[in-house]
Amino acid sequence: MSRRLALSVMSLALSLPLSARADEGMWMPSQLPELSTQLQAAGFRSDPRALADVTRPPLSAVVKIGGATGSFVSPDGLLLTNHHVAYGVIQYNTKPGANLIDDGFVSHSRSEELPSNPDFRVLVTTAFDKVTDQVLAAAKGKTGKAYYAAVDTASKQLVAQCEAEGGVRCSVANMYYGSDFYLIKQLELRDIRLVYAPPRAIGNYGDEIDNFMWPRHSGDFTVLRAYVGKDGKPADYSPDNVPYRAPAFLKIATDGPKAGDFAMLAGYPGITYRHRTAAEFASQVGHTLPQRVALLDTLIEAIEQRGKASAESRTRYASQLASLKNNRKRAAGELEGLQRSDAVRLREQDERAMLAATKGSEARSIAQLQQILAEGSAMGDRDVLLGLIATQTQLMRSALMLERLREESRKPDAQRETGYQQRDQALIEGVLKQVQRRFDADTEKTLLTLLLGRYQQLPKDQRVPEFDAAFGRDADSLKAALDTLYANTTLGTEAERLARFAAAREGKPLAADALIDLAVKLVPAQIRLDDARKDREGEQLRLRPAYMRALFAWRKQQGRAVYPDANSTLRVSYGQVTPLNPRDAVSYAPVTTVAGIVEKNTNVEPFDAPKPLLTAIAKGVYAGTEDPALKTQTVNFLTNLDTTGGNSGSPVLNARGELIGLNFDSNWESVSASWWYDPRYKRAIHVDTRYIRWLMDKVYPAPDLLREMGVPAQSTGPSR
Amino acid sequence: MSRRLALSVMSLALSLPLSARADEGMWMPSQLPELSTQLQAAGFRSDPRALADVTRPPLSAVVKIGGATGSFVSPDGLLLTNHHVAYGVIQYNTKPGANLIDDGFVSHSRSEELPSNPDFRVLVTTAFDKVTDQVLAAAKGKTGKAYYAAVDTASKQLVAQCEAEGGVRCSVANMYYGSDFYLIKQLELRDIRLVYAPPRAIGNYGDEIDNFMWPRHSGDFTVLRAYVGKDGKPADYSPDNVPYRAPAFLKIATDGPKAGDFAMLAGYPGITYRHRTAAEFASQVGHTLPQRVALLDTLIEAIEQRGKASAESRTRYASQLASLKNNRKRAAGELEGLQRSDAVRLREQDERAMLAATKGSEARSIAQLQQILAEGSAMGDRDVLLGLIATQTQLMRSALMLERLREESRKPDAQRETGYQQRDQALIEGVLKQVQRRFDADTEKTLLTLLLGRYQQLPKDQRVPEFDAAFGRDADSLKAALDTLYANTTLGTEAERLARFAAAREGKPLAADALIDLAVKLVPAQIRLDDARKDREGEQLRLRPAYMRALFAWRKQQGRAVYPDANSTLRVSYGQVTPLNPRDAVSYAPVTTVAGIVEKNTNVEPFDAPKPLLTAIAKGVYAGTEDPALKTQTVNFLTNLDTTGGNSGSPVLNARGELIGLNFDSNWESVSASWWYDPRYKRAIHVDTRYIRWLMDKVYPAPDLLREMGVPAQSTGPSR
Repeated sequence: MSRRLALSVMSLALSLPLSARADEGMWMPSQLPELSTQLQAAGFRSDPRALADVTRPPLSAVVKIGGATGSFVSPDGLLLTNHHVAYGVIQYNTKPGANLIDDGFVSHSRSEELPSNPDFRVLVTTAFDKVTDQVLAAAKGKTGKAYYAAVDTASKQLVAQCEAEGGVRCSVANMYYGSDFYLIKQLELRDIRLVYAPPRAIGNYGDEIDNFMWPRHSGDFTVLRAYVGKDGKPADYSPDNVPYRAPAFLKIATDGPKAGDFAMLAGYPGITYRHRTAAEFASQVGHTLPQRVALLDTLIEAIEQRGKASAESRTRYASQLASLKNNRKRAAGELEGLQRSDAVRLREQDERAMLAATKGSEARSIAQLQQILAEGSAMGDRDVLLGLIATQTQLMRSALMLERLREESRKPDAQRETGYQQRDQALIEGVLKQVQRRFDADTEKTLLTLLLGRYQQLPKDQRVPEFDAAFGRDADSLKAALDTLYANTTLGTEAERLARFAAAREGKPLAADALIDLAVKLVPAQIRLDDARKDREGEQLRLRPAYMRALFAWRKQQGRAVYPDANSTLRVSYGQVTPLNPRDAVSYAPVTTVAGIVEKNTNVEPFDAPKPLLTAIAKGVYAGTEDPALKTQTVNFLTNLDTTGGNSGSPVLNARGELIGLNFDSNWESVSASWWYDPRYKRAIHVDTRYIRWLMDKVYPAPDLLREMGVPAQSTGPSR
Repeated sequence: MSRRLALSVMSLALSLPLSARADEGMWMPSQLPELSTQLQAAGFRSDPRALADVTRPPLSAVVKIGGATGSFVSPDGLLLTNHHVAYGVIQYNTKPGANLIDDGFVSHSRSEELPSNPDFRVLVTTAFDKVTDQVLAAAKGKTGKAYYAAVDTASKQLVAQCEAEGGVRCSVANMYYGSDFYLIKQLELRDIRLVYAPPRAIGNYGDEIDNFMWPRHSGDFTVLRAYVGKDGKPADYSPDNVPYRAPAFLKIATDGPKAGDFAMLAGYPGITYRHRTAAEFASQVGHTLPQRVALLDTLIEAIEQRGKASAESRTRYASQLASLKNNRKRAAGELEGLQRSDAVRLREQDERAMLAATKGSEARSIAQLQQILAEGSAMGDRDVLLGLIATQTQLMRSALMLERLREESRKPDAQRETGYQQRDQALIEGVLKQVQRRFDADTEKTLLTLLLGRYQQLPKDQRVPEFDAAFGRDADSLKAALDTLYANTTLGTEAERLARFAAAREGKPLAADALIDLAVKLVPAQIRLDDARKDREGEQLRLRPAYMRALFAWRKQQGRAVYPDANSTLRVSYGQVTPLNPRDAVSYAPVTTVAGIVEKNTNVEPFDAPKPLLTAIAKGVYAGTEDPALKTQTVNFLTNLDTTGGNSGSPVLNARGELIGLNFDSNWESVSASWWYDPRYKRAIHVDTRYIRWLMDKVYPAPDLLREMGVPAQSTGPSR
């Protein structure tokens, strides 16, 4: 009976207009009070003003961990983040006889908590101040590269002043594409310890096969604890350190999410392109992405062909091949998604209406911006090809990198190009050392033949005299050039590379070599192209604010606020627990249960749930953590929250601001969401906090930790 | 709002008890009046008594076509069946310049209707009478092989008498495993013409990729017309023939199916094993299927390995490999499904309860049956291996077949083993002729080494002296035997095989040859094993009725009727249009729409919908055929109707007995339904009649045909 009812209502849901209300938006916390009405309408049951200040509770509980997000869940510095975010820490502590990756880890007392790898950091935001006037003061009246340099110099000065007090990391964040700048001060916690991790087969259940997939069944969480020196200040690891007194911590919800519930999330999304121009959208879909897919296909095909002929090449290029394939998959997914959402047309419609309402000097600035963007876009093919030549090769890349390092090292450190400063030298050395394991001359020549062959086909205005001179204008001269270069270079030998590295970091000339001599000719061209790019970027920085002002005005007419595109600063999004109807007649419920683990389990990685978990599921004994309607233990849930890379580990909160989940992935259909939020397809995937509680209570018990997190624990478990 | 409601109700549906009411049952039409209450409760709105007689309307409209089903839809012999059922007819008419497979076919007048391949037949049932007493009269008091022979002889006599009048095909159907026998008389229509077929990319949209899949988007239908001689009697094709006056035809519904609607289906399901014993279930799941999967894996692996070394072997074994993989996939799917449904345990519980209620001589007969089945099962491994040796080889198979043919051909035709009678000789000749395209000595020796190697590992009581003598008892002697045989046989030459075929069909001795000499030794053993099998089958035929009587009694106690297992006779099943929740959090709506065609379309076969279809979808102009709730054109729908192989083309009817669809496939989860109907997973997939109407009205118009089928046509289209 209820089944039949469900169906007819479901059919209705499927036929809802596609333009249903978007829960789009990665809001700066300071914007939330002005969104009060919308938040309340969406179901939020607290005061949005409490969320406005990122340096005060509850948002001060949300921290940056690596490139991702975490949150404090106890006054004594307990942190919750994803298993995949803390994976390096787990790996660092995996040793013969202690396989923490496979077996997981439960600390039974604070003394058992394990140190993390020394470069692992947690950043707690302590100040977040608008500095637009200071940053732009010297830029006023300038254009192009000079505008860019003025902004860069002012920002570096602010950062230097801010960091002078020590123990903090400062940065300047550019909001709304050069419209506003904020100085962010963050406490840099350096002693982070591993407290609790589930086995890999829980924390990463399904691995690559389930990656981007829903329905999902992953326990992607880990518990860490931050420590500081006895003086309360950030310190390197020491057994004498004490738990950090967190400025705020989140309350764990006792009930869980169900379809339609309000949900919100705070975290550090990396980068989005939502407010790019219609022309940039059109170029991305009409040119950049299809070209990227085709180009990557060619490279993949070439490496695979070589791999068939040579087992050694197959081994050496396995990792590069996997990475190319992953990039190819993402590019194709982004393209598919943008086409499915008809994003180019919709963005174009929207921009046309906006421009119709924009007059005078603003309109002229926007026209100038469009011109600059078109110029950059016209050079796009060349920039992609030269970029791949410098990144998808080993010896060529080494030669270019060494010569550029030599050139930059002649300047004072602060004036050197990013990537070639003193702090970057260890990374460069690492790249030079790993060549041996990743290089095969024939494969590299094949890749360069493909890339430079395409370069040769470019129209004259995109070509570069130094490259033309080096490789000629046709296939024969290219072949001859590459044959000569690779027959005569000694860079295949590690000692030869490292000897030149020692010279380059001192700014001294490099010993002669076929590829180094080539790099001496090409690097000046690269620097010239970089300068032209900075000139265009300076113009964009100067002109995009006009575009944004037009957008603000247009959105205001529509009764909508504008969030800044993501830039790795703290953002909040809100929405609902939401099902997904990805295709005709297919509907995914927004909450999964442990039944799905059993269904997927093959006992073969990555579907090899540990015995204790399977036993616990079979027993069906929960910890007050089962869903009252589903009458079983839930695992993951789905929302329409607006997220992107960097939101891993973001706490998901209910209408009362309590922690109901941990963000850890998106669905495949939302790969294109970095450009376009489509409410039909954009979903975020979360671990249900009830699953975490159940695992920590009944499967791998840690009752003391649960109690520290303010959660009633049923099991007595081993005492901590 | 309605979306949110849908979700919470959906969650409820997902947590429904798993033992929800089963719509299991392939009923003999004569049983339907006694199911009147259940039918009405399910939503049927006509008189079930009208369905009781298969020789009267409406069921006399349902005919057998090839191994499948079709139905009359006009008084002038128009027939509706699946595109894949009529595929041979379409292929037969595909010629240079007329690619009916790719382009489809629309006849514009009766004179344009195209003849089918000469062996294509439509069977109209004209009599269906119980003959249990006649069949069993001579068997009474006999056992084993004698019982089997008595039943066989009596059946053959009945068939011969029945067919004496000519133009009809008769058969005896065994219902309830020897409990009842029916004599079926069918008019054999031999002039069937192609009237309308959609292009392959509609009729088989999705092909192998979508095979067994839901959601589905296939227009798997074709329209044929039956013709007879001017005297109204079945006749071979002749331009002078006239349309057959169908004894009944189905009315096309004007509205369509939606979730929860009553649906019923009539057709010719091939074979099911639902009433097999618990021990047979246990053996199937615990032994037969896993062993089949493992054995097929070994053969597949061996053929693929050889294929890597030899392109010729790869080509010659491509079709055998595809078939082995398909069998392997089905066996694995059946195993997976039976395990998922916990069928062994449930069947065992059910049987235990039944046996507890069974006493006296019935109980003793059942015990005897169990004993006989156990004996057969104990020989199962050997029978599988010897079967594969005789079917998965080319030269070995030819030798065994030739020698057996020679042996059988010495008897009067009627006494020969099925498969070796005169009417089978063309088939045998075909097999002998295709050897050249499918044979490679090394591959065949590898396969035989695997199969005979496993045979050698069998316990003594399963081994056969003649095989032991021929191949020895270890790997060395097996290798020596095979090397000698294949070095010395001349059967690799077609002329050598056909010369022996000419002798064998006359019962004359065959010219000497290594493999023929071996066959002379092995065939007597095969005949001996056949005899033992017939002895066991005779006992089953004698004893299974006791098991069935116990089942009838037990089901009566439960208030349930018993349908006979499927045996290619006309059956009716009823149920509802039903969604599918195949996995945790996954829900499939029971009706698909044209939006799904566009979503799936890649323009690459098999997702290469023809331009006229895509244009029509984009236009969104329907023919009163769109779904009023979904507001778009539907394509396929899903029911819980009980079907199996042979139900292809079965008409699906609504509560008023009108045609709403055409059955054409099942979902992957119901591969195991031949043994066990699990209401959670068993679904049948149908073409929505509204899609057929729309295609015939707006996409490839045939308005005259629609009018002949009693459907209002909007398009004027080319006149017929």
